[in-house]
Amino acid sequence: MSLDPINPLPPGSVIGILGSGQLGRMLALSAARIGFRCCIYSDVPGPAFDVASAHVLARYDDEKALAEFAKGLSVATYEFENIPIRTVEFLNRYVPVRPGTKALACAQDRINEKNLARALGSLTAPYSQIDNLNDLKVAIGKDIPIPCVLKIRRYGYDGKGQSKILKQSEIESSWESMKNQPSILEGFIQFDKEISVVAARGLDGSFIAYSATENEHYDHILRRSIVPARIQSKTEMEVVKIAKRIANELEYVGVFAIEFFVVHQNGKEITLFNEMAPRVHNSGHWTQDGAQTSQFEQHIRAITGWPLGGISLKAAGAEMINLIGNQISSWKTIVSDPDAILHHYGKTEIREGRKMGHVNRLLSKKPL
Amino acid sequence: MSLDPINPLPPGSVIGILGSGQLGRMLALSAARIGFRCCIYSDVPGPAFDVASAHVLARYDDEKALAEFAKGLSVATYEFENIPIRTVEFLNRYVPVRPGTKALACAQDRINEKNLARALGSLTAPYSQIDNLNDLKVAIGKDIPIPCVLKIRRYGYDGKGQSKILKQSEIESSWESMKNQPSILEGFIQFDKEISVVAARGLDGSFIAYSATENEHYDHILRRSIVPARIQSKTEMEVVKIAKRIANELEYVGVFAIEFFVVHQNGKEITLFNEMAPRVHNSGHWTQDGAQTSQFEQHIRAITGWPLGGISLKAAGAEMINLIGNQISSWKTIVSDPDAILHHYGKTEIREGRKMGHVNRLLSKKPL
Repeated sequence: MSLDPINPLPPGSVIGILGSGQLGRMLALSAARIGFRCCIYSDVPGPAFDVASAHVLARYDDEKALAEFAKGLSVATYEFENIPIRTVEFLNRYVPVRPGTKALACAQDRINEKNLARALGSLTAPYSQIDNLNDLKVAIGKDIPIPCVLKIRRYGYDGKGQSKILKQSEIESSWESMKNQPSILEGFIQFDKEISVVAARGLDGSFIAYSATENEHYDHILRRSIVPARIQSKTEMEVVKIAKRIANELEYVGVFAIEFFVVHQNGKEITLFNEMAPRVHNSGHWTQDGAQTSQFEQHIRAITGWPLGGISLKAAGAEMINLIGNQISSWKTIVSDPDAILHHYGKTEIREGRKMGHVNRLLSKKPL
Repeated sequence: MSLDPINPLPPGSVIGILGSGQLGRMLALSAARIGFRCCIYSDVPGPAFDVASAHVLARYDDEKALAEFAKGLSVATYEFENIPIRTVEFLNRYVPVRPGTKALACAQDRINEKNLARALGSLTAPYSQIDNLNDLKVAIGKDIPIPCVLKIRRYGYDGKGQSKILKQSEIESSWESMKNQPSILEGFIQFDKEISVVAARGLDGSFIAYSATENEHYDHILRRSIVPARIQSKTEMEVVKIAKRIANELEYVGVFAIEFFVVHQNGKEITLFNEMAPRVHNSGHWTQDGAQTSQFEQHIRAITGWPLGGISLKAAGAEMINLIGNQISSWKTIVSDPDAILHHYGKTEIREGRKMGHVNRLLSKKPL
């Protein structure tokens, strides 16, 4: 079932997507526009089911269901990096899964991905592997003074599985909150900006990166992205170079995002690798309306062996604002503004902190 | 179930679409982006099934299936004007169908629509109602000399149900090819251009028209549309005025298209109403990439009681080229061109004359 990059998958082929959330939904919508059919696999029903030609509702360890799912597929992908790696390995026996397990294994572990970034020339915040309370005490006493952040190595997202340590007395409770999971202690970075590089690597090894995006988080959830990021062009070239090295090293196929912190040291802009998402990313949603090819179509192009699409900006700048929880209730106001482009995920239940939609806007001037 | 225009349907509502072709598919894709779910009803499986949350495969006269279909819907619409009017009337007892039967009845009959256009101030080619061979002979002898075109009044499309009469000896065979169906004889127009106005009327009576589109047909099938149409601005104002009058007269809700012939008489540009399509239209496909709001989203906005979206052009001009039959096989070349935006309908079978997809392009200059 392996694919020759010179023989891209024809429209009409079926793409399997693991995960039924908004990213799977937007992938399926983009795939449909260029003639692909999608089958969604998930252990919970989600908004991607509504726009796909088929879906499978089963546990991620249900090998019978996975094998059945694989039958009609030409290629498979996933919309979230917390998918069990065994699921991907199993599926990969039947159908190519892109990006592959090498990238997934790396990105699933905060220590692995930081080790790789460092090995490929990026700076990071200081970090240390923490497997027990003693490790934590030693690290704080030595390399990573308070304030610092303790995080589980795997399966954290949107601030889940994290604990800030602001004083000595919080060390033990912080470790307890990790529930004995392998963890990482990270030095606390007073950053000036958070940026991300959303990039794609094709099946033929071609690489493109969208204009770097500047991100504002609140309560660990992305609220707003603007593009172009207000950074020096030298800084942008630097982070794109790192992204390309990482993609090549992981033999990556598809779209991915890397978040960096930007700090100023002695008047110079320095970037620190924070984390990588081996998938389309919230900070790339502006590409749906602001770039020649959206990140969703780009991912589909990459995994089907198509040439990557153009990435030029459609305007001087673009802005993406997430609609979190109850903010989705403002849809009436949003759709009355002709410059606001609403993307509503069609989720049936509003929950606090849940990503319900986003609004894109083109900007006639670069962000100042 | 009637809707207050001040209470637009919320995202999450289900829209019923009669017809499973590419227009239904693109309506469903646009509806999904703004959070609606779609249920497709058709007597044949089609590419819209692949992107909708549900579908019903049943005959258009199956009242049990229609009633069942209507149950979960908040509003219904249709993607083709040859839907039996009884189907729409029946469905309308359960759920509002937009546009309504008044518009549908008018547009389904070539004589009705031309009568209306004339009554509202438009010119048309000369035409005459033909119900038998004698009518035809009389009309040709009096008002509509050869060359002329005989057409069935209803259910014709893409040149089907038409017969040119170029000499006396073709009169009888021409009438025979109508198979005794009520027909219309139209004078043959030596036109300079064919244009169309794609416009929308909201539930609140608001009206907008996209920039007029210039269309090239070959073998009765639209091949290429460019925008802005190369016509005088006075001409454009004139056709938009006619479109608005027709929409108001029919209490139209949704997107529609009107085709006009442009002829030059004594150095003046004259327009003749040709026909109306009470639905999204092939000549409006460029709006997907070239206008602020696509005709598909616009239609969904209108029928759900949302405010109409902006219609400004995203570039100096735009071009749409249909991919008919085997032309779809050139997809590899198309997707290698970063400026070509492919819309592939995902149809499983290529047939001669079948619309398989289209390519949009933005133009940096107005068409000359």
